[in-house]
Amino acid sequence: MSPTTRGNSGAGKTLAKYTVTRTERIHWGDCDPAGIIYYPNYFEMFDRCTTLMFEQALGMTKVNYLRVYDFSGHPCVQTNAHFHQPTRFGDDVVVESTIAKLGTSSFEVQHRLTKNGKLAVEGAETRVWVRRQGPEAKSIKAHPIPDEVVARLGGR
Amino acid sequence: MSPTTRGNSGAGKTLAKYTVTRTERIHWGDCDPAGIIYYPNYFEMFDRCTTLMFEQALGMTKVNYLRVYDFSGHPCVQTNAHFHQPTRFGDDVVVESTIAKLGTSSFEVQHRLTKNGKLAVEGAETRVWVRRQGPEAKSIKAHPIPDEVVARLGGR
Amino acid sequence: MSPTTRGNSGAGKTLAKYTVTRTERIHWGDCDPAGIIYYPNYFEMFDRCTTLMFEQALGMTKVNYLRVYDFSGHPCVQTNAHFHQPTRFGDDVVVESTIAKLGTSSFEVQHRLTKNGKLAVEGAETRVWVRRQGPEAKSIKAHPIPDEVVARLGGR
Amino acid sequence: MSPTTRGNSGAGKTLAKYTVTRTERIHWGDCDPAGIIYYPNYFEMFDRCTTLMFEQALGMTKVNYLRVYDFSGHPCVQTNAHFHQPTRFGDDVVVESTIAKLGTSSFEVQHRLTKNGKLAVEGAETRVWVRRQGPEAKSIKAHPIPDEVVARLGGR
Repeated sequence: MSPTTRGNSGAGKTLAKYTVTRTERIHWGDCDPAGIIYYPNYFEMFDRCTTLMFEQALGMTKVNYLRVYDFSGHPCVQTNAHFHQPTRFGDDVVVESTIAKLGTSSFEVQHRLTKNGKLAVEGAETRVWVRRQGPEAKSIKAHPIPDEVVARLGGR
Repeated sequence: MSPTTRGNSGAGKTLAKYTVTRTERIHWGDCDPAGIIYYPNYFEMFDRCTTLMFEQALGMTKVNYLRVYDFSGHPCVQTNAHFHQPTRFGDDVVVESTIAKLGTSSFEVQHRLTKNGKLAVEGAETRVWVRRQGPEAKSIKAHPIPDEVVARLGGR
Repeated sequence: MSPTTRGNSGAGKTLAKYTVTRTERIHWGDCDPAGIIYYPNYFEMFDRCTTLMFEQALGMTKVNYLRVYDFSGHPCVQTNAHFHQPTRFGDDVVVESTIAKLGTSSFEVQHRLTKNGKLAVEGAETRVWVRRQGPEAKSIKAHPIPDEVVARLGGR
Repeated sequence: MSPTTRGNSGAGKTLAKYTVTRTERIHWGDCDPAGIIYYPNYFEMFDRCTTLMFEQALGMTKVNYLRVYDFSGHPCVQTNAHFHQPTRFGDDVVVESTIAKLGTSSFEVQHRLTKNGKLAVEGAETRVWVRRQGPEAKSIKAHPIPDEVVARLGGR
């Protein structure tokens, strides 16, 4: 994994995009009878990548950042993926994940998965920063992403 | 499961939509430490629903329809989902799956998942009817969906 | 699902065994490139069966029985399985799950999975009834299974 | 991963044990509402470890060793696991996998999973070297493990 903060400078405005790159092996058990990856597994992979992006930006594992920033998680409210070419067990793929948008309490992540340098899958997800609330903390509600987290992700 | 073929008749044109409805239980093992479903599992659920739609329309299980219609599968090339409200272990949800578009060799399925009558998740997927080809049958290629299959799905 | 309480009466001793039977469909996504079920999925199936056994015996879903009996779960401490013949996508299998032993705070469940009436898999698991305790309720500890639960499972 | 071949020399007999060690991260999506790993995922982990053991011993990925040694796989016929202490998302665990027995067409693998140096899980599995046979290659049958494979795994 290698975090990269890219500066795209415009007229008086700097938009930095936080990006992490990670290699994943496609395993036998990830594949279906057609011998290719069973596509729901890509969403597990992307979820791992988003978590690892936060872990790197914040310098601690998820179990700790949930506690330190006192929130319940960053559930996905919307996601999509385009599968350009299949991957097979034994393939080592590279996933480049980028914070594409950072809002007040939501953010977007884009995942670009390549195999031997060729684009295989593109994914995108919108997530919300949430806290538990109400009786017995049973419901969750959007909460502003802390300034420190925004700063570490290169935002605003 | 109850298949329904709905006729939406317009001026001189009949568009029939093939729909199947299915109840799924959310299990403990489908959920994450937040106590709600781990969202990649929705894509497994939708894949099951699409397969069951074909099984009902064609009157045989997938292992048989792959053989009878001599093809390799209907891989997903694009999918998206919107998560409106979470589901939890013990929830019984209803998934209504509909063939939204039937092309020459591709088709679209829409999934509408409700919990206690309220919309919880909307999903959509584009799939391609494929056959193996080439040396050792290693690559797959789009192939026209057989007329009989199209007819049974209420298309064209 | 059909719960059965069988009485095996001996000399002055009655041992009742609580049994539930359930049908499960093997899905495309449960299978690996060999076209047969990826065996870790059997353990998910057995876990579902154990939960459903409790749900039937106690007359409520897991989310409710955890609350009503005020405990944290029945984690598995030991499990084993023998795979006698493979199952494939489209197979409908029958799983008969039985409480084989009911101790003070632990119990054993045996699962017998048949396909077309022939034994395909045998599984067994030992589980412990646990409660959270200590600072921030972070650790779990074995706790006696409530008498009411024991009675409903046909024990002691 | 670091393969180790240990020689346990006895009187005129050398029994070498092939061992590979691998680190695995427990992910959010591997865990259940109790916040600990959903135990069926350990079997996926062990399956990955067994495959990687073969990949290292044979110097090629599974997709290649299935082709080179012309067989259909090494399905699991029996497995068991003891869960001594739970693991949580963010935990990095070490799995040491060892060929415990090498028969004519079957073998046993033992997995020892530690967390912070303390034993967390012990697993064992018996697998069979199989080839497809019969009409349409639909059934599988045990086949002797090739001498070269046995030698590379330190056996006989």
